[in-house]
Amino acid sequence: MRIVNISIIGFGAVGQGVARCILSKQEFLKKDGIDLRVVGISDSRGSEINTGGIDVESALLRKKQKGSVAAGSKNPHEIIRDVKHDIVVEVTPTNINNGEPGLSNMRLAFKSGKHVITSNKGPLALHFNELKEAAEDNGLFFRYEATVGGAVPIFNLVHEALAGNTVLGIEGILNGTCNYILTRMSEERMPYDLVLKEAQELGIAETDPTYDVEGIDSAIKLIIIANSIFGLDSTYKDVDVTGITKITPEALELANRNNYVVKLVCEAREGKLTVAPRLVPKRHPLAVGGTLNVASILTDLAGRITISGRGAGSIETASSILSDILYIVRNS
Amino acid sequence: MRIVNISIIGFGAVGQGVARCILSKQEFLKKDGIDLRVVGISDSRGSEINTGGIDVESALLRKKQKGSVAAGSKNPHEIIRDVKHDIVVEVTPTNINNGEPGLSNMRLAFKSGKHVITSNKGPLALHFNELKEAAEDNGLFFRYEATVGGAVPIFNLVHEALAGNTVLGIEGILNGTCNYILTRMSEERMPYDLVLKEAQELGIAETDPTYDVEGIDSAIKLIIIANSIFGLDSTYKDVDVTGITKITPEALELANRNNYVVKLVCEAREGKLTVAPRLVPKRHPLAVGGTLNVASILTDLAGRITISGRGAGSIETASSILSDILYIVRNS
Repeated sequence: MRIVNISIIGFGAVGQGVARCILSKQEFLKKDGIDLRVVGISDSRGSEINTGGIDVESALLRKKQKGSVAAGSKNPHEIIRDVKHDIVVEVTPTNINNGEPGLSNMRLAFKSGKHVITSNKGPLALHFNELKEAAEDNGLFFRYEATVGGAVPIFNLVHEALAGNTVLGIEGILNGTCNYILTRMSEERMPYDLVLKEAQELGIAETDPTYDVEGIDSAIKLIIIANSIFGLDSTYKDVDVTGITKITPEALELANRNNYVVKLVCEAREGKLTVAPRLVPKRHPLAVGGTLNVASILTDLAGRITISGRGAGSIETASSILSDILYIVRNS
Repeated sequence: MRIVNISIIGFGAVGQGVARCILSKQEFLKKDGIDLRVVGISDSRGSEINTGGIDVESALLRKKQKGSVAAGSKNPHEIIRDVKHDIVVEVTPTNINNGEPGLSNMRLAFKSGKHVITSNKGPLALHFNELKEAAEDNGLFFRYEATVGGAVPIFNLVHEALAGNTVLGIEGILNGTCNYILTRMSEERMPYDLVLKEAQELGIAETDPTYDVEGIDSAIKLIIIANSIFGLDSTYKDVDVTGITKITPEALELANRNNYVVKLVCEAREGKLTVAPRLVPKRHPLAVGGTLNVASILTDLAGRITISGRGAGSIETASSILSDILYIVRNS
């Protein structure tokens, strides 16, 4: 049995999703010869450390009952640096201004000889190449499947399953909130404001929806894709961004009559990064509805390969993190 | 530079596609530290062997001009057994009656210590578990991404990118000919016979279309999926198969009015294997048109992940074979 020790830094929806996944997959992983243990968990109020393996079920219960996992007061940096383990699962919230606290956590992890797996878009949108090089220089893995597309394994698909192909371009619908709003506007012929309100009531849109509807979230995901797949060094200022707030039911109706749908499409092609509403033929693989995410990879050999699935959700995001954990275990 | 030696057994459309891919990717692979050499090629009339690496461009030209690659008379078994190399690319035609000559080629390859990569469905539909065990017993890889879905990396997706997930079910549209016929019948309101004739003229359907339109090809692909992903030991008799020959334009029109399309869907779920025409909602990720192939993987963590792309074509199939070559190189 191979013991794999991880820490979970950040214990919000994604961190708890990872913990629940690990709990539910313990027997499954043991059959594969892997004893996956969580040796450190931290949230904004404190932490728990157990070098023999934390009782994850109790930690989840404590979080639920007391709002924090805190059993001790060590901070994330002390866990990352001082506790002996293999992989830091960095799942603190995305901060697009300076990437913190995720950025410092990742830098320290690489310095301390730990692999990093993350769902945190901030550090990658701001300092992708620095982090990638820090991992390489230290002979460590840096995996971030969960940053883009939730459960949809875009990076694995391109780097592993389509290995040998040259990627010519990527198109994607990477924000479930926008996709939901546009789908409902089109199918129910309702105006933007009304559908946004409905989405907010359903918890699909935030109270302040700016980050989603203005295309900012999509742009950040596109940056990570472009840097990872095309080896660019782009940041937010390199993306030409238009949101969905100006789209009228009339425009959607006109599109519909001509067998098109309107989607907020992210595109990376020939070094140019764009997020904008675009007409997509109804029969096109990109034309998926509801809150789904989709990515379409244009390659020289395989042609266009399109993959879709749930772009959000704590278990869905944890699924990508678990596949990254297994990738590291199989390749190290 | 790591030298990787392969043989190409079978030099029809797929074998030549593999050769063209290797030619066009030579520099790309060398940048990755891989010197990929073809040391043996055989077709039905003869073979060429060069332990230092065949001039692939000349071999392709000779095949085009003379109809055969033959420069010598060694048979496939002599190449597989006697020539020192790492990987046998077995791309002889699918024979669904007894799997030959592919079956014997694969058995011999494993016995001779060579990894096997194939696009040949026959041996896998008939003796999947025997071949899988032969590979495992000899510590060798057995990769068959190209057998199902052409360029669409279904097996890589499930086994690698979705690692950690339990697959609950799989639905797929795995025959481009049927998908083309149903799409055209629906969009142009034309009867089956007329669209079949059009597909035959375009080279999308064979002169004898039985293998495709009766669902046989779909069933064979479903067997390979089921055996690989669910660890079953199924063969053709385990699949409940209905083709598309009885579908009328009226049925498609009725579906269309209710926002459905009719697709020939392969399904593996709870040990039951079915190929049959089914109603699919137009908005559903499975509802892809034309000759595209699509597979939808239902998982416990990631939910439904759907992938689509070109299901046929020599370069597209070669793309899957190339990714399998790189998988073996990276993991051995």
